[in-house]
Amino acid sequence: MLGTGATEGSRGGKSRDFWRKMARTINFNAGPAALPLGALERAQKELLDLSGTGMSVLEQSHRGKPYEAVHNEAIALVKELLGVPDNYDVLLLQGGASQQFAVVPMNLLPAGKSADYVLTGVWAQKAYKEAKLIGTARVASSTEKDGKFLRVPTQQELDLDANAAYVHIVSNNTIYGTQFSEFPNVGNVPLVADMSSDIAWRPIDVSKFALIYAGAQKNLGPSGLVVVIIRKDLVAAGRKDIPVIFQYRTHAENNSLFNTPPTFSVYLLRNVLAELKANGGVSAIEKINREKAKLLYDALEARADIFKLPVEKASRSTMNVVWTASTPELEAEFLAEAQRRGMSGLKGHRLSGGFRASIYNAVTREWVAALADLVTSFKK
Amino acid sequence: MLGTGATEGSRGGKSRDFWRKMARTINFNAGPAALPLGALERAQKELLDLSGTGMSVLEQSHRGKPYEAVHNEAIALVKELLGVPDNYDVLLLQGGASQQFAVVPMNLLPAGKSADYVLTGVWAQKAYKEAKLIGTARVASSTEKDGKFLRVPTQQELDLDANAAYVHIVSNNTIYGTQFSEFPNVGNVPLVADMSSDIAWRPIDVSKFALIYAGAQKNLGPSGLVVVIIRKDLVAAGRKDIPVIFQYRTHAENNSLFNTPPTFSVYLLRNVLAELKANGGVSAIEKINREKAKLLYDALEARADIFKLPVEKASRSTMNVVWTASTPELEAEFLAEAQRRGMSGLKGHRLSGGFRASIYNAVTREWVAALADLVTSFKK
Repeated sequence: MLGTGATEGSRGGKSRDFWRKMARTINFNAGPAALPLGALERAQKELLDLSGTGMSVLEQSHRGKPYEAVHNEAIALVKELLGVPDNYDVLLLQGGASQQFAVVPMNLLPAGKSADYVLTGVWAQKAYKEAKLIGTARVASSTEKDGKFLRVPTQQELDLDANAAYVHIVSNNTIYGTQFSEFPNVGNVPLVADMSSDIAWRPIDVSKFALIYAGAQKNLGPSGLVVVIIRKDLVAAGRKDIPVIFQYRTHAENNSLFNTPPTFSVYLLRNVLAELKANGGVSAIEKINREKAKLLYDALEARADIFKLPVEKASRSTMNVVWTASTPELEAEFLAEAQRRGMSGLKGHRLSGGFRASIYNAVTREWVAALADLVTSFKK
Repeated sequence: MLGTGATEGSRGGKSRDFWRKMARTINFNAGPAALPLGALERAQKELLDLSGTGMSVLEQSHRGKPYEAVHNEAIALVKELLGVPDNYDVLLLQGGASQQFAVVPMNLLPAGKSADYVLTGVWAQKAYKEAKLIGTARVASSTEKDGKFLRVPTQQELDLDANAAYVHIVSNNTIYGTQFSEFPNVGNVPLVADMSSDIAWRPIDVSKFALIYAGAQKNLGPSGLVVVIIRKDLVAAGRKDIPVIFQYRTHAENNSLFNTPPTFSVYLLRNVLAELKANGGVSAIEKINREKAKLLYDALEARADIFKLPVEKASRSTMNVVWTASTPELEAEFLAEAQRRGMSGLKGHRLSGGFRASIYNAVTREWVAALADLVTSFKK
């Protein structure tokens, strides 16, 4: 279940009794990341036989009714849980957010136009770099300082081009642990957001965006699938002189079945969203996510004797909590103790150093409480 | 196991005893298609806990040792089983063969050069169409006649451009059921082959090809993964003015870990190839595949009173057997009887009509024998 589940932290080892409650490692991976246990257990149970067909979901034709039911349920759940208005298409594509860095400008950045990029971290920089290979792109803002991005920009800091083809933002920055708590006002320019690491963490007003894309491997499911939510007028206006496979219209017109979709990844997306819905949906998970983040940030603030939170408070991410220890020895000691307590994935990205706890939707309150306990008791 | 396994054809229904041998549907799907039962059972058993980590493979970081071991084993198995020479890179990518239709010319078709396309069916046409959106492409041969492609061309029919950037072929055509039994001689021009539907059905001399690509969802594993085998000099010579994500060098230089790979699909590829290796590898499966194809084609030829094999004999596919019945009523009756016997996926593609039995590596001899029995006994 989301927000609940096993608190046992010790490593599992090979299980003899298949149905025994697994000893789950406490998983703070940045992505691919922890998935809801219920979604995984359902996949395991059905793996050899999807809905009485005598075949695995992996063996189903993507043109057959059993798979199509899964596919359409996944799309319907995205629409329902995220409140996607009727004038948007939901596309299930491949290649991850990194491919969207190129596909967005290929579709939406015609010759003679320029696109605005808000640089808040490594992924935003990569998106900007791809756009420059395809057309004209400019930096509307950058919060880089001394080689690091420790905050997102304020509205006043945005230098927006009123004629831009679009403005591109990254809503949450996994590496530095920053997040937009409020989205920029970009006037009438289409707003494009990479929400890979915080989609579905709380309800949002989709109508403020022209295009949202998200690699599934943090809050939505497995890697190998990217969810694109795009306003229909942008689909229609997209360039037609690019390869057919990269045109959004190709996939919009074919319900994301133009070519063989990544069927198992879509199936897992369905399982994860069904689990989210059964647990109260996005509003319910927001409450839990805010509690988790507060618990951990409060614990870290209370240990200013040892730990430091480098990110500006107003830009702190509810999904990726980044901190450092005062010496490399303390860092190593903390990581060793965390591992001893069955925790994994806490080492920070090499660009940030220190620690990072990714506390996405499927990371339970109990797991975060265990980490907060360690922070509180460490070296006391 | 490959080539053996359950022969029980009745539909499964929901299984009470999880470990009970599943009643498997006899699966002749064209792709996604039947997978080796052993590969699926291994996935099911390990789904909540990969090698004692206390996490699913779906929850592993792609930068962590447990996943990297799977990733590297998958690549090593491709190299070993297919006999890939050292001067080739094996890439694990996303987007399927349909994306490679665009990515091949984006990388390998510079301005001022032309590429040759051999048209043998729908997929070859799609590849040609994408190439024309990117650069200059010409038809080196087409076997289209009255809107159908019922054979592959002979060597003499190929009108090759000695200065072409490459020659593109599709080695097996799923829709019409044709296959190259010998590959064209294209001289010194790089030969590019879409082998999605017959890779690993038999040993081949990889060194005859500059680039081989294959969507995994027929002989290699699940959808959402494409295997690319590319000569290193082509990687180096590829264009650099295209998006970074689409440059083969990006993935070659990063061991296919530039961005998050489709980790579960790679894991399944590993399982399928490990199963293939344990069952004697590609030489062993070729023998079984030839037996299966002969069994079914012989049975169909013996029933010329009812069934017709439209494909020219020399071009018949060992992977996709296409045939028709003399009346629509007989077709419907045959499909109904096949379904009653627990067979699925036999309806032909709308462009070919009639029937199609896809008998890829994981389709057992027993399954094909059951179909041949039905062909032999039908209306007698």
